[in-house]
Amino acid sequence: MAFTVEQTEGGARAGILSTSHGSVNTPVFMPVGTQGTVKSVTPGELTEIGVRMVLGNTYHLYLRPGTDVISGAGGLHRFSGWEKPILTDSGGFQVYSLSKLRKVDDDGVTFQSHLDGSSHRFTPEGTVGIQRALGPDVMMVLDECTPYPCDRGYAGIANKRTVEWAGRCLAEFSRSEGLYGYEQAIFGIIQGSVYPEIRKDSARALVGMGFDGYAIGGLAVGEPGGLMYETIGICTNEIPAGNPRYLMGVGTPANILEAIERGVDMFDCVLPTRNARNGMLFTGKGPMAITNARHAGEHVPVDETCGCYCCVNFTRAYLRHLFNVREILGPTLATIHNLWFYHSLVAGARAHILDGSFLSWKSEKLKEMEPGGRESGARRQSNQHSSRRVL
Amino acid sequence: MAFTVEQTEGGARAGILSTSHGSVNTPVFMPVGTQGTVKSVTPGELTEIGVRMVLGNTYHLYLRPGTDVISGAGGLHRFSGWEKPILTDSGGFQVYSLSKLRKVDDDGVTFQSHLDGSSHRFTPEGTVGIQRALGPDVMMVLDECTPYPCDRGYAGIANKRTVEWAGRCLAEFSRSEGLYGYEQAIFGIIQGSVYPEIRKDSARALVGMGFDGYAIGGLAVGEPGGLMYETIGICTNEIPAGNPRYLMGVGTPANILEAIERGVDMFDCVLPTRNARNGMLFTGKGPMAITNARHAGEHVPVDETCGCYCCVNFTRAYLRHLFNVREILGPTLATIHNLWFYHSLVAGARAHILDGSFLSWKSEKLKEMEPGGRESGARRQSNQHSSRRVL
Repeated sequence: MAFTVEQTEGGARAGILSTSHGSVNTPVFMPVGTQGTVKSVTPGELTEIGVRMVLGNTYHLYLRPGTDVISGAGGLHRFSGWEKPILTDSGGFQVYSLSKLRKVDDDGVTFQSHLDGSSHRFTPEGTVGIQRALGPDVMMVLDECTPYPCDRGYAGIANKRTVEWAGRCLAEFSRSEGLYGYEQAIFGIIQGSVYPEIRKDSARALVGMGFDGYAIGGLAVGEPGGLMYETIGICTNEIPAGNPRYLMGVGTPANILEAIERGVDMFDCVLPTRNARNGMLFTGKGPMAITNARHAGEHVPVDETCGCYCCVNFTRAYLRHLFNVREILGPTLATIHNLWFYHSLVAGARAHILDGSFLSWKSEKLKEMEPGGRESGARRQSNQHSSRRVL
Repeated sequence: MAFTVEQTEGGARAGILSTSHGSVNTPVFMPVGTQGTVKSVTPGELTEIGVRMVLGNTYHLYLRPGTDVISGAGGLHRFSGWEKPILTDSGGFQVYSLSKLRKVDDDGVTFQSHLDGSSHRFTPEGTVGIQRALGPDVMMVLDECTPYPCDRGYAGIANKRTVEWAGRCLAEFSRSEGLYGYEQAIFGIIQGSVYPEIRKDSARALVGMGFDGYAIGGLAVGEPGGLMYETIGICTNEIPAGNPRYLMGVGTPANILEAIERGVDMFDCVLPTRNARNGMLFTGKGPMAITNARHAGEHVPVDETCGCYCCVNFTRAYLRHLFNVREILGPTLATIHNLWFYHSLVAGARAHILDGSFLSWKSEKLKEMEPGGRESGARRQSNQHSSRRVL
């Protein structure tokens, strides 16, 4: 894996992430493909939208279909028919958010499947092994996520464990090899809740180990927007300029623009896909609840300025009807639209970084999208953050 | 609308149906788009499969979103983003199969919505008016469907009413005009259960009125395959060679080939789409239940000879996983595959009629698909017929 920063504007960066499965322009938004599919769309539709990298969830794929099936297919790319770059998380976040019973010790975490109650154990070495079998272009270390609020003491303990596990993951990664003839990369994850000193310690320890990239974890779990942005800035400040920076599980369009300003290159979040399935569509003028009766007779596109397959071919009235009668095509078209919106947002940010107009464009964009102002927008949607990456 | 027979082989015909929304090669299979969408696929995917004509259900569209919404959009083509030919039924079949309470009198049928119990009335004139508002290229007359078994007396009464209503529909059709600047056509429906004399009377009476095309209704409702084929032959024999012949709601691949041999040009059925959503895939060697555990590790296409998007890009193992974890992409890919199978079947029949090899090709095809023989195949699936066109 290689990463090149092409242009900066203040903290914001436009770059290129090169992997064995192709290159990705950054900033990039990775749709979430929890169970080996981005819900309700085909890989062909993703490609048409402009998506060049997706995320897979190790926890879900490990449970179903299991790593044996995926390695039998020759890895997740071949299994899922997505031959472009893939990043997988380590499964840690889902263990904390989904499994019924879990017990963390210094060596790893034992948990019960949320599906059938069966008992499983993730260790740092084990999750690297699973991700060798899944075969993503980028794998993540096993970390211990903290909730919000989180007292300083526990934030420190969880981060200490996260850093130790990161070292063990990296050692296991170095000892092992990719199974499918192409290179994999591994990213460390910075934890430390909203405590600047712990975040700095975390980042420095990980940077000292020399990962391919660095993620910021443990945010968008309910903290105020301002505190999230501050913490992002503290972290990106510690990550070497030559490495990609990945903000996990974030967030709203406003969150993403603020994070890009603070130097983040990569994002993933369920918001566009999950909200789509609930009939919430992102537009340049703010969100639209398509099931609202007032759209029943609106024979115009969801967003007249949008170039997606949904907006070019269908109307609000039709989409509202599809949701109203519970047709699968409703979530499909809404997902295409929302992913197009997110892709256009980061592609727009990139274009404006390249020509030096990002900051002014960002201010305009935020004003258009969030009539109540960016902070109120972040707060308004904070309840949606707390369930990040849990599909 | 124009219909040209290009070539015949025995009773089988290859033709072209020309409408204001384009031409359709026959024999044609029309996927069922009950509520203004062929379930789980986009119009773009339908086009890629080769689909050139779809069916819409007047009963469902009349209830939701309602004819006012669809006429506000400029008709069903524009509303649903499907700019190729559309045929709508009259709603009669759904009144009989879906509504909780219904009362037929000589003037029409009063029924309660299966959704909310609200009371509605369809008359011959009314269903023509609704279909003027929906704007299909081909509309159907209101008929009275008979179940199987059906005593001869009731079959005669229902047919008498069907013929009278057909006359009223045709008169209303002649009195009125299309609302959207293009031509619509109207087909009569031959009823008469499995009684040859009633079927002949029905066909002759309708042909005497001069419809644009003629449908065979009231079949695939539980009668034995042999009796269905015999009845089809009796009907097609009465329909002038220059008119298209449409067998409503039929059927299995074997049913379709047998009906083509007997001179049928047009088909619709929920089998490929509904079975797809239940994980039942049609293949050249018979049906495949993709959820079966034995497919979990089969990293090969559903059908290696198939050129559909599903078979070219994905494996049985992946499809089985999608169904197992209830991902929307499962029904989507299975629907694409099954519609491709049905489209290829009728396109294959057409190609072989054109070069005079239909009968021998048909025998081979039936042997490959139905190891137990065609009759046992038809019986085996007869339980699926009884719920035809009810999505």
